[in-house]
Amino acid sequence: MQNETKPRARDLGVPFPGTPGSLNAITDVNGVMVGHTTLISGEGKLEVGKGPVRTGVTAVWPRGVGATEGVSAGVFALNGVGEMTGTHLIEEFGAFIGPVLLTNTLSVGVVRDAVITWARDHIADAEKLFYFSLPVVAETWDGNISDAYGQHVRPRHVFAALDGAAGGPVAEGNVGGGTGMSTYEFKGGIGTASRRVSVPVGDYTVGALVQSNFGRREQLLVAGVPVGKEIDDLRPSRLPGDALSSSIIILVATDAPFLPTQLKRLARRAGLGLARTGSTAHHHSGDIFLAFSTAVSPTRAGSGLDVYTAVPDAHIDPFFDAVAYAVEEAIINALAAAETMTGKDGATLHALPHGRLQSILRRYNRLHE
Amino acid sequence: MQNETKPRARDLGVPFPGTPGSLNAITDVNGVMVGHTTLISGEGKLEVGKGPVRTGVTAVWPRGVGATEGVSAGVFALNGVGEMTGTHLIEEFGAFIGPVLLTNTLSVGVVRDAVITWARDHIADAEKLFYFSLPVVAETWDGNISDAYGQHVRPRHVFAALDGAAGGPVAEGNVGGGTGMSTYEFKGGIGTASRRVSVPVGDYTVGALVQSNFGRREQLLVAGVPVGKEIDDLRPSRLPGDALSSSIIILVATDAPFLPTQLKRLARRAGLGLARTGSTAHHHSGDIFLAFSTAVSPTRAGSGLDVYTAVPDAHIDPFFDAVAYAVEEAIINALAAAETMTGKDGATLHALPHGRLQSILRRYNRLHE
Amino acid sequence: MQNETKPRARDLGVPFPGTPGSLNAITDVNGVMVGHTTLISGEGKLEVGKGPVRTGVTAVWPRGVGATEGVSAGVFALNGVGEMTGTHLIEEFGAFIGPVLLTNTLSVGVVRDAVITWARDHIADAEKLFYFSLPVVAETWDGNISDAYGQHVRPRHVFAALDGAAGGPVAEGNVGGGTGMSTYEFKGGIGTASRRVSVPVGDYTVGALVQSNFGRREQLLVAGVPVGKEIDDLRPSRLPGDALSSSIIILVATDAPFLPTQLKRLARRAGLGLARTGSTAHHHSGDIFLAFSTAVSPTRAGSGLDVYTAVPDAHIDPFFDAVAYAVEEAIINALAAAETMTGKDGATLHALPHGRLQSILRRYNRLHE
Amino acid sequence: MQNETKPRARDLGVPFPGTPGSLNAITDVNGVMVGHTTLISGEGKLEVGKGPVRTGVTAVWPRGVGATEGVSAGVFALNGVGEMTGTHLIEEFGAFIGPVLLTNTLSVGVVRDAVITWARDHIADAEKLFYFSLPVVAETWDGNISDAYGQHVRPRHVFAALDGAAGGPVAEGNVGGGTGMSTYEFKGGIGTASRRVSVPVGDYTVGALVQSNFGRREQLLVAGVPVGKEIDDLRPSRLPGDALSSSIIILVATDAPFLPTQLKRLARRAGLGLARTGSTAHHHSGDIFLAFSTAVSPTRAGSGLDVYTAVPDAHIDPFFDAVAYAVEEAIINALAAAETMTGKDGATLHALPHGRLQSILRRYNRLHE
Repeated sequence: MQNETKPRARDLGVPFPGTPGSLNAITDVNGVMVGHTTLISGEGKLEVGKGPVRTGVTAVWPRGVGATEGVSAGVFALNGVGEMTGTHLIEEFGAFIGPVLLTNTLSVGVVRDAVITWARDHIADAEKLFYFSLPVVAETWDGNISDAYGQHVRPRHVFAALDGAAGGPVAEGNVGGGTGMSTYEFKGGIGTASRRVSVPVGDYTVGALVQSNFGRREQLLVAGVPVGKEIDDLRPSRLPGDALSSSIIILVATDAPFLPTQLKRLARRAGLGLARTGSTAHHHSGDIFLAFSTAVSPTRAGSGLDVYTAVPDAHIDPFFDAVAYAVEEAIINALAAAETMTGKDGATLHALPHGRLQSILRRYNRLHE
Repeated sequence: MQNETKPRARDLGVPFPGTPGSLNAITDVNGVMVGHTTLISGEGKLEVGKGPVRTGVTAVWPRGVGATEGVSAGVFALNGVGEMTGTHLIEEFGAFIGPVLLTNTLSVGVVRDAVITWARDHIADAEKLFYFSLPVVAETWDGNISDAYGQHVRPRHVFAALDGAAGGPVAEGNVGGGTGMSTYEFKGGIGTASRRVSVPVGDYTVGALVQSNFGRREQLLVAGVPVGKEIDDLRPSRLPGDALSSSIIILVATDAPFLPTQLKRLARRAGLGLARTGSTAHHHSGDIFLAFSTAVSPTRAGSGLDVYTAVPDAHIDPFFDAVAYAVEEAIINALAAAETMTGKDGATLHALPHGRLQSILRRYNRLHE
Repeated sequence: MQNETKPRARDLGVPFPGTPGSLNAITDVNGVMVGHTTLISGEGKLEVGKGPVRTGVTAVWPRGVGATEGVSAGVFALNGVGEMTGTHLIEEFGAFIGPVLLTNTLSVGVVRDAVITWARDHIADAEKLFYFSLPVVAETWDGNISDAYGQHVRPRHVFAALDGAAGGPVAEGNVGGGTGMSTYEFKGGIGTASRRVSVPVGDYTVGALVQSNFGRREQLLVAGVPVGKEIDDLRPSRLPGDALSSSIIILVATDAPFLPTQLKRLARRAGLGLARTGSTAHHHSGDIFLAFSTAVSPTRAGSGLDVYTAVPDAHIDPFFDAVAYAVEEAIINALAAAETMTGKDGATLHALPHGRLQSILRRYNRLHE
Repeated sequence: MQNETKPRARDLGVPFPGTPGSLNAITDVNGVMVGHTTLISGEGKLEVGKGPVRTGVTAVWPRGVGATEGVSAGVFALNGVGEMTGTHLIEEFGAFIGPVLLTNTLSVGVVRDAVITWARDHIADAEKLFYFSLPVVAETWDGNISDAYGQHVRPRHVFAALDGAAGGPVAEGNVGGGTGMSTYEFKGGIGTASRRVSVPVGDYTVGALVQSNFGRREQLLVAGVPVGKEIDDLRPSRLPGDALSSSIIILVATDAPFLPTQLKRLARRAGLGLARTGSTAHHHSGDIFLAFSTAVSPTRAGSGLDVYTAVPDAHIDPFFDAVAYAVEEAIINALAAAETMTGKDGATLHALPHGRLQSILRRYNRLHE
């Protein structure tokens, strides 16, 4: 549950284009539920298998916990040095069934199989169950602060995230799969945002959720302002053997009906939102984006044919804008929400200092006051 | 117009799986029209710009001459050493508007621009006209027999193919874009075939049309029989400077409604039909496949949303079969129809000898008699 | 270990084009090692979590057990209704490090994480270890004969396959990941084959290994002969709730040096080999192909630049042929080697009867005697 | 030739990250030559076929005029509603031979075929000539200001651009293919920029050239500053029947040696540079990017193998940065150089007013003074 008193980027006066939904979260998209299991234990020296542990699991259900109806979807890898399972299916069908899970790199497998175990234990219909066989699980790397090689995620942690998912406000920062992540060399993690889109054919919502773990400090832009160049201190303590890995998984949800080909187009725009924060998508990054539509689609006509509805392409531009803007804000929200964390061998990731952020934005005439 | 007395592969006793439509041609798909302009002139020694000329243009209108409604489509390049313009659009929209043109490699440009000129002169509505700006034009190489560098195709030849397109039987062999082509080192060219598909949601047709210009003799299989190994003579006279280029453009049409993602799947199956004739898709080949659906799609709902219908994936396998089988037969039909041709510098491409084909098939117990 | 007395397809007189290596196996490619863990236990009525179990794990090490050097690679999904992890990385880098694992659909996760655990316990160098973080694990579905939802594969089974991998003859049929698989409605499983390729720049080998679990009986072609139509009995006992899943994972290895772009081309040809056995790549199939080169590449020049060698494209066609031919034979080898198996609820998959195969081939004048 | 007195974006005080080459142009990459043919004639009322004409052709030779050696290359379509011919070949080979041409949408064909004619008349070697058969020609739409349907580009205009190409400063704005283009609803056209990249393995240059014709005013960012929102006037006069088309073709050149897979990664970063100017890649846009390396590659070893050198991936990030930064600056350079133009039916595209740009940047504390 989101701490009501924790200010988000927008509360701090960061200006963003577009109009957010009521929660400014992916859960503004009707039906989307999010659950986190956060694993924080131990401190001090790394003992593989013992800790310290700074990791977790985030579950995103497109249609609510346990829903067995698929969603149309499209995927795009801006830089594919990462894992998102289930994407061969998405490319082929333009759809997937079940939840999307986010975790650390070395626990993708246990999370994947646990989704299947959960489905086996909750879904009676054999055919529906069968479509849970190729789950979508993605990752970023928290091994610089957590005992990643200890592979501490257990099936029960996955079940808890799946069962605990809910609508409403979404906890951000050091939670779930984002627990041990960093962003532009500050502490990062989970972030979310949303946009309202009004087109002649209806009023819709686009939501984004990121597990954000990428970026070189000097590139950080906030609302176009070179904040990263202005804050040169508060660097992570980098240790010998630290991996260079950095990634961002971006989920884009909408209640607008779209064909898979259109959703693939939306997924590509997630990268444009990422670029608005300064990223150039570095070599070791798994920048993998998934867009899905929760609109009920297809229905079965009397003829037996599938019937799909879709927002006409003539109205798609506002959705492209919404994706880019929501992703930009979700990343800055992750930065705003994350708190300083110390992990293995005393390695520390510092929070983005809110006051300094505000004074920099003010200096560039970009603070909403 | 197809010569009624010329036997097709099936008439010769070649067995193929599946049930063809009444014409066993892409024109069995309602609305599809095909027109050829065949350019044959000159003989003897090559004089660039003068001839000999053995080339042409084939126009395929998915919805009839001059139709301005788009068709859903998908494209796949098994080996991309060739050109098919307009495919960026198809990847993005899952659709295209207007005809598909086939010609020789060095005339793709004139054909492309002539399609636009034709549209300008025939389509009054500015927006509809605009969508003809990115035409689909594909090619294979006839420069071993024709004065390709003479670039003999003119806009009027394109207009003639566009205007002359019609339903009904489709001329095969040395016609249109296929005039100067070779296949498995025999004379090749245009070929076509179709399959009926009955699924619980309806009765449909799949048609294929190929411009066939590929293949090493020894690999040729006819109905699984190693015919190419059995006919070692009748090789093309190969001349110094002959290019190694070889390609096949495959068009797949269906009246069944499909989403673009599904049509992309159909396009990939064209390669499996190609493989059934023995090809391993050689290096210099432009093996590029386009599948489209002529079903009216999308319609506009009262809500303003697009409405698409689609055959459910659960019934797609018979279409996959139909694509592979129709493509296989279309290629063998091109071989069966093409007649021995002599072109530049006396270079000769020999027809596949029907009698020898039959006796080989008989020897392998594969001739339908 | 391969049963020396068990005849392979070639021993039965099935004719295949091309010249195999000495073992006619993927292990003819120098350095490639294969290990199987086969899990067969229980019989009779299914009790989820108890059995019967008919599954396993196959490990393929491109450069031998424990090698930490990467291999250039390319991947292609002919039909993506399946899983192969690690492919985002392969698309991005054109390479991967570590083994390739094959198992059943519902155990991909445990196998994936176990590869990482194995690496952690065997590889001291932190950077080298890091590159094992995104392992390649693929699957096909054995749930019609095995207690798939019991998820019986354990990390120790993965370790055994990894540690037990070796060069030399490769066991085929009901072994490793192929234990419970079916092919063209006969018993299927693991199969392998190889081809020698001599081009002006050197003598090389192409090897294929398949985990084969696909196909409708009537489509089966053996050496072009419609064997599937001729053997209409010996069908699997199909039970209520049986899934329709069917897939084939194809690995292609070569010692010839190739760039990633070239290996992607090789991967696409695996589908042409598949088509030679009659497949049209059905809807529920995960037909995913991976090609890699074991040639040492890149080396580091004095300048610090990477140096890659590659077979020139002008010589690539014989490799395309070799891939298609080796894949075709590997599939038929899987059929030839697999033995009748009875599993959950008494479901039975029948072996392809060797004698009948031979008499059919003889009737079509295609038996090598 | 660039007007020496015309200030570029950097001269106006716009801050950009990174260090440009001496010309801050794509021609800083050794060997790259650029030629423009600019067609401006007529004014007033549109008469199709007569004018007014505001169009042209830009030729970019990667290795100098007439070079017959290929360049390694990669392509990426962020939004594919446009044309770039020759890309099937680039996907397949990871390379192309010959020049890249930019023109208007409806003249792609004549330009394509004219490249072949030019090659025929200049290249004696038959095999080398053959590789000019699939030229790279891309387009954006100038039909709102020019008589596009008049198809005024002639082969001689193409020859002039090809023959006139040179190194040195590159004319920007209303020249060549960019003559009639608009950007963020200001006048746009051709722009270029470059970056120096120093990595441990060498000092290299990355250059970008854009034909820029996209964007909605309100989205324009200059150095992160919302300039488009601040300049709400100076809109194009929009006429009935105006097309919505908008596109940007981006060419990225480098003298650093890279594999095709790496160049594809560079091509994707062009989109991140585009996003830095505010674009969200709208529906009707052909945002197609081509990256190539002029490093001599491959060489032929004594063994007959191809030998490629490549910057190791460990050093690729500065190139990713350079691409994004050079593309951003090239777009703003196109805006800075373009001058107000009036075309068909009096339609006017206004130049970005330099003084107002500067005062806005000053207000946001972003002007370099």
